[in-house]
Formats: sequence, C-alpha cells, structure tokens
Amino acid sequence: MSIIKSAFRVLRFGSAKNQLFSLESKTCRAFSVCNKLRQDASDANASKINFYVDENKEKGYAILKLNKGPVNSLNLEFLTELNIQLEKFEESKEIKGVILTSSIPNIFSAGLDIMEMYQIKQDRGSQFWTALQETWIKLYGSNKIYIAAINGHSPAGGCLLSISCDYRIMSKGPYKIGLNETLLGIKAPFWFRDTMINTIGYRETEKALQLGKLYSSEEALAVNLVDELADSKDLITKAEEQMSKWCAIPTVARELTKSSMRRDTLSKLIAQREADTQSFIEFTQRDSIQKSLRMYLESLKKPKKSSA
Amino acid sequence: MSIIKSAFRVLRFGSAKNQLFSLESKTCRAFSVCNKLRQDASDANASKINFYVDENKEKGYAILKLNKGPVNSLNLEFLTELNIQLEKFEESKEIKGVILTSSIPNIFSAGLDIMEMYQIKQDRGSQFWTALQETWIKLYGSNKIYIAAINGHSPAGGCLLSISCDYRIMSKGPYKIGLNETLLGIKAPFWFRDTMINTIGYRETEKALQLGKLYSSEEALAVNLVDELADSKDLITKAEEQMSKWCAIPTVARELTKSSMRRDTLSKLIAQREADTQSFIEFTQRDSIQKSLRMYLESLKKPKKSSA
Amino acid sequence: MSIIKSAFRVLRFGSAKNQLFSLESKTCRAFSVCNKLRQDASDANASKINFYVDENKEKGYAILKLNKGPVNSLNLEFLTELNIQLEKFEESKEIKGVILTSSIPNIFSAGLDIMEMYQIKQDRGSQFWTALQETWIKLYGSNKIYIAAINGHSPAGGCLLSISCDYRIMSKGPYKIGLNETLLGIKAPFWFRDTMINTIGYRETEKALQLGKLYSSEEALAVNLVDELADSKDLITKAEEQMSKWCAIPTVARELTKSSMRRDTLSKLIAQREADTQSFIEFTQRDSIQKSLRMYLESLKKPKKSSA
Repeated sequence: MSIIKSAFRVLRFGSAKNQLFSLESKTCRAFSVCNKLRQDASDANASKINFYVDENKEKGYAILKLNKGPVNSLNLEFLTELNIQLEKFEESKEIKGVILTSSIPNIFSAGLDIMEMYQIKQDRGSQFWTALQETWIKLYGSNKIYIAAINGHSPAGGCLLSISCDYRIMSKGPYKIGLNETLLGIKAPFWFRDTMINTIGYRETEKALQLGKLYSSEEALAVNLVDELADSKDLITKAEEQMSKWCAIPTVARELTKSSMRRDTLSKLIAQREADTQSFIEFTQRDSIQKSLRMYLESLKKPKKSSA
Repeated sequence: MSIIKSAFRVLRFGSAKNQLFSLESKTCRAFSVCNKLRQDASDANASKINFYVDENKEKGYAILKLNKGPVNSLNLEFLTELNIQLEKFEESKEIKGVILTSSIPNIFSAGLDIMEMYQIKQDRGSQFWTALQETWIKLYGSNKIYIAAINGHSPAGGCLLSISCDYRIMSKGPYKIGLNETLLGIKAPFWFRDTMINTIGYRETEKALQLGKLYSSEEALAVNLVDELADSKDLITKAEEQMSKWCAIPTVARELTKSSMRRDTLSKLIAQREADTQSFIEFTQRDSIQKSLRMYLESLKKPKKSSA
Repeated sequence: MSIIKSAFRVLRFGSAKNQLFSLESKTCRAFSVCNKLRQDASDANASKINFYVDENKEKGYAILKLNKGPVNSLNLEFLTELNIQLEKFEESKEIKGVILTSSIPNIFSAGLDIMEMYQIKQDRGSQFWTALQETWIKLYGSNKIYIAAINGHSPAGGCLLSISCDYRIMSKGPYKIGLNETLLGIKAPFWFRDTMINTIGYRETEKALQLGKLYSSEEALAVNLVDELADSKDLITKAEEQMSKWCAIPTVARELTKSSMRRDTLSKLIAQREADTQSFIEFTQRDSIQKSLRMYLESLKKPKKSSA
C-alpha cells in the first residue's frame, strides 16, 4: 500500500458514514492520521531535512515547506525546530511574510504525533505540549504575514496551523480539513476552539467540534474555514499573489491592527500555559485514553484489508 | 374558528406588515400567540397528558413530544413537569440524545403562558421564572444530544427551546420562528439574547430582537436559525438520521466539547439567577405592562372578524 | 478637475491594485480622501450651513443631511455641531428616529479631517478626539432609531458613522465603504474595530482592517456591512419605508433591547476615554506619522497628472 493511498484510506473515516461511526470503539484511529506510515518510513530518515525555507529577500517574503515525511506529523523535535525557524522569521528585517505549505504531495500536515501521547513520561509530555503552545503563540501572534497554502489533508493540528495564519488558500481536490479531535475521543483544547471561533464563528464551530467534522475544500470555503481555493498547480502562485497584496500594506499599521485583533485570544493561553499543560498530561494519562491508544497502535501492527 | 386557523391568524401578525405595525397599541396580542385557544380548550383537559416520551433504548435515544394543547404554552406546572423529565434523561445511562418535538400539528410551542405574567403574585411569578431558567439551564447545558424537530410555529419561548438544542430541523410550510418579544412590549432576557447570538451571530440578533422578527422556515435556514428543512412527513425520519450521526461520536469527548462551548453563556445566568428573577417580577409588575396585558386579555373576550 | 471626479480619483486607490500598493510610501494620501478638495473649497464657505434637518413630527422621524462641502470631512467644529444636534434628537419626545444622509452628491462622508492630525497642539487634538468619541457614544448608544442612507463614498470615519446606525441602505453605484485606516499608516481605534466586529463579524473584520479594505456596495451587501442596496433615486424613499417599520415597534421594548445589545461595547470606551485620547495624541505626534502627513499635504500642492 502506497503512502498516499494509505493516507486516503485513513482519512476516509471522516467522510464515509459507516466507517466514521465505527470510530467510537477504536477511538484514536484517525488521530495522527497516518501514524503507521511514519513508522514505516523508519529510522532511515532520522537525518532527513524536516522543512525547507525559500527566502526571497527581494520580494520580502519566504516560503516554508514542511517536509517531515510521511505526513508532517508534529512531535517534540519537529515543533522545536519549527519554533526556532518561526523565531528567525520574526526577527528578520528582510521578510514581511511567510507562505506556509508542505513539500509532501496531498498532505499539508496530519497534526499531532500520537506517539507523544502514548505511554509518555510526564517530562516528555510536558515538553511536547509546551512546544505546541509555543508554535501556536508564535504563529497566531506573529507580526509577520502568514499565508497557508494548504496543498492537501489538514486535520487536527494541521488545521490549527492553517487557522493560525492570516489567510488560507486550499488546493481543490479530495482533501479534508477540520478539528476532528472528538472522533478520536479527545476534546480540542480551548485555544484550538477559540482560534476556530475567530475563523468560522461560534455556531459553525459548535457543530464542527462536537461532530469532529472534516470539511472538503468546497465545504471549507463555504464556511470561510479557508479564504480561497486553487488548482494544485496554481496554489503557490496564488499564495504569492496574495502575499504581494498583504506586503503592500503599511507594515506598522498592519502589525498593530493584527495584534489588536488577536491579543485577547492569545492572552487567555499565555495566562495559563502551565495549567493547560497539566491538564493535557492528566487527560492523556487516563486509563481510558491510554487503552484507546494501545488498541489503536496494536491495530496498526496487524495486516488488514484495505477499506479503499 | 378552528384552533389551527386561529393560530395562523394570530401568527400572521408577524408577516403582514399592516397588521404587524398595528401592534404597538395592542402590545401583547401575539405574545402567548394562541392564549385564547388555551382557554377555549378549557378545564376538560385538566388531566390531559402534557407530553409523551418514546424511549428507544436499542438506538440510544428518546423522542419527547410536547402535547399540552392547544399550543404548548409554557406555564409553571408544564415547565416543572418538563424539568423532571429533562432530569430523567440527563441521568439515564441508556440514552445519549433526545429529539424534541410536538404532537400538536402546526405548533411546536407558542412560548410562555401570558397568564403567568398577568396579575401574578410575587411568589407565583418567582416560581414560574425560576422554573423557566431551570428549563434553559437543563436544556442548553445538557450533556445529552438534543435535536429540535420543529413541526410548526415556534415564537418567543418556543424559539428559546429550539435554539437551546444542538441541532434544529424545521418543517417546510407557513411556519414562523423567532424571538418576537419586542412586539409585545417586552425585552427578551439576556440569556435568550445570548443563546440567539450563539446561534445566528451578533448582527442578525441585533436586528431580529429590535424588530421582534419572526422568520419563515426559509428565512430561518438562510440565517442559520435552523440547520435544515424537511417536508413535514419526513421531519422525524430526518431528525432520527441526524441523531444517529451524533450518537456515533465518542460520548465523553462530545460532552466535554459541548460543555466547553456553552459554559460561559450558562455561567452568566447561573451567577445571577435571583437578580434575573427579581428583574422579571419588577418588570411585569409595571403598570404599563399590566395595562397592556389587561387590554390584550379583554380583546380576546370580544368576538372579532377573522383577518385570515 | 471637478470635485467629484477628484473624489473618485483618490478613492480609486482602494480598488486599483497597482495604485493601492504604491500607498506605503505615500502613507496618508487616501486618508481624508478628498482633503485637497476641502482646501479648494476654501474660506468662502466659512459661514456655510454644515447640515440640514428635516423634522417630520407627524411621521415621528427626522432626516439629517450632512452638508459640509466638499466631502463632509469631520473636524472639531463640525463634530461639535453634530453632537449638539444628536443631543437634541435624543431629548425630543416627538421623533423616534433619524435618517442620516448627505446632501452632497456621491459623498456620504470622507471621514476624519486630516488637518486635525497635522501639527496639532495637544489641546486641540484632545478636544477633537473627545468630540469624535462623543459622536460615536451618542450615535451607537442612542435610544433613537438611526438609519444610514449612504448616498456615496463612506471611507474611514464615514464608515464609522454608518455602522453606528441601526440599519444601512447604500446607493448602488461606484461607491466605496470601509475602515481603510491601515492604508494610511494608522490603526483603527479599538472602538471602530469593535463596532465593525458587531456588524460583519470577527473574521471579516480581521481581514478588512489588516488590508484597509474598501468595499464596493455589492461587496458591502455580501458581507452585511450594509443591509440593503437602492438605486440612488430611491434611496431616501427606501430609508423612509424602513424607518416606518422600525417606528412601529413598541418604543420602550426596542430601546431596552438596543441598549442590552450595545452596552458592553460602549462601556469599553466610556471606561477609558482619557487613556484613548492620550493614545491618539501620542500616536499622531510620532515623527513618522507627522512626516507622512507632511509629505501627503505637500503632494497635494503640486500639480499632478490625473490617474483617472
């Protein structure tokens, strides 16, 4: 089974009703979406490059391509590397904005790495969650312009990255985006929720989070979860056109305006990062959650018929 | 004049401009919408069953059919009965959700019983309002899945019941739904307002509450006051399909998510229930309000030409 | 170059991409939109009437026509006059509402007068900003019904006047409306922002304010920045029809409802008016802002090729 085919197979849980509703007893299957694939990819990739940066100082923006195969799942090391890069962008006097995309076909990011939640020691869990908070704070609170060029699936943490940007363009195609945590038996943290409310409004968020809804690109456009669709081949071009438009706005005024819009939402997490981390640790250490994770991981080891 | 025809006649105040705007001097006519009908129905119904419950333990949900003829208006006794039933649902380990509908053709609920506001003693008024608060807290704050199958008119308190559910399907047809309190000379309480904002957003609520707008089913769908329309004959089937979808979501995660969305709105009332009750008592005891109510009730005793 | 043609020329900055993006280095050009025109009109108009009031006591509403040529820009004296008039309306027992429009063809209001920000003394700046706060508090917090009949361009402060009303009807035609402050190098104050969020929602506001977006009338309707479009010749008739509808709502209930919706937003400014004024003074006294203003004003003195 190819990586991509497998990614589709897992994601199809979100759209195929019968499969979707078998999720309750196998709570975590869809979570890291393609976690098994990550394992398949194996240690051979240990020294691989996790992202590329194309910096265009003349035009004043960079392109950041996530490249942590197979599915850009977010673990402690990857988040740490990302945070360092985001900090570099923030301090740069030469770039005004960043286009965030992925170099992996059909996958923007599969979200949090499930292995960061299974049988973790408290220390590691705490570091992981702190790193994830940091990523969101840096991205959502950035003075720079961030445009997400969503080239493929973007569930859970992948959706969080997207909605933390200033503008979203998504490839047309059979891709899904959404905060589907509920389907995996877990609750989206309050700052995922607030970022979603700020993007698609209260009522749509209430429905989407309760149902763990994964939106097709057309559905995402209809509820303003993304701002624009593009043919895959035009995605980066369109993102660059949009970036040029944003770069032309007087910088200080744009920064002050962005900060004025997002300050309150950011403050809520910043004021309680430790409590939020503690709550993550306690939640993942519940027997019921660990049991679900174990069942899920064991299921990945068994050969199974493709449902595709 | 048949009950239904009469219900239409009164509700038509909401759509026919000329009639609507004659409302100011007859402030309360539309309020309990079909209050006269309630009186017509008379004491013969004193021992009638006010609602039916169809519990389907196999499928994991119940159907609650309001049956307090003629128009499911909400008085202290009915609310008290409802609150006991909602509590039973909440404690049940066998059901995950409830479809809320009415067994009365063309009427979901006409809202609050006007007789609970006319010449009430403080004690009764206080008990009535406390019971209504309790209904909203139990419904909007429930861990269970509530789906409103709105089979007919749903003004004022009927609209509140609807928007306190998780999902709303409304029958196509000449039915109206909305918070039309302003037309009756009163202000919707802040928790009606907040529930409305959480459903259709701030701006639409601002317009709707100032104008006392009653939406047709198509209009209600357009502003997301309801999530879906159905032919009357398919209403319950569609509600059951939707319920199956919601029941398939992992329960604890869905409950935590729902609670996370609604906690702040609920807390605002819970923190000031007594002050809110006091404010209701003081408002309804105003001479101007009592005068409006008396004029309205007297107008009901006179024969009048049908405007239908 | 005629006044109107010139107004169009300046406003076209908002729609023509290449011109728009040349704005960064000439930060303030679009700000008072037609400031040069104001100067052209010159002192000859010193004793002119700045607005007309048509009071129709029988129908119960007034029409307020802004008439401070050439473009209804808002300076201290004009705001002070307006505030006195708004106070008169508020105290009137004979009128329930006011239609706010302009007697100047194609211009509703160009917003704040840039001369109130260039080389101002602290005293004058403070008085100016306090008067503007007062206008917003009186308008957004009014018990009366305000309907904006937007007969032409309505950028920046003109947009603020519009969104502080209860209902907006805009003329079809090549007119623009929006909070475009960012394009001029400044940040819209938080109460401009909050009024915008209350009108078009959080996400649309976040995009609009960052980009300084000026909406065409059709775009404004699509995002609910205005409620209705009308042919220019029908604008006042439509506004009067709408006013009749609002006037028919029981007055006290409507007032209480409006106040309940807007109280929190108003309180935020009322609680910190002085700090907000101080922040305006400090911001406009920055060298970078004064330099931008000077360059802009100097550019107005030079003859230049029409870009129209």
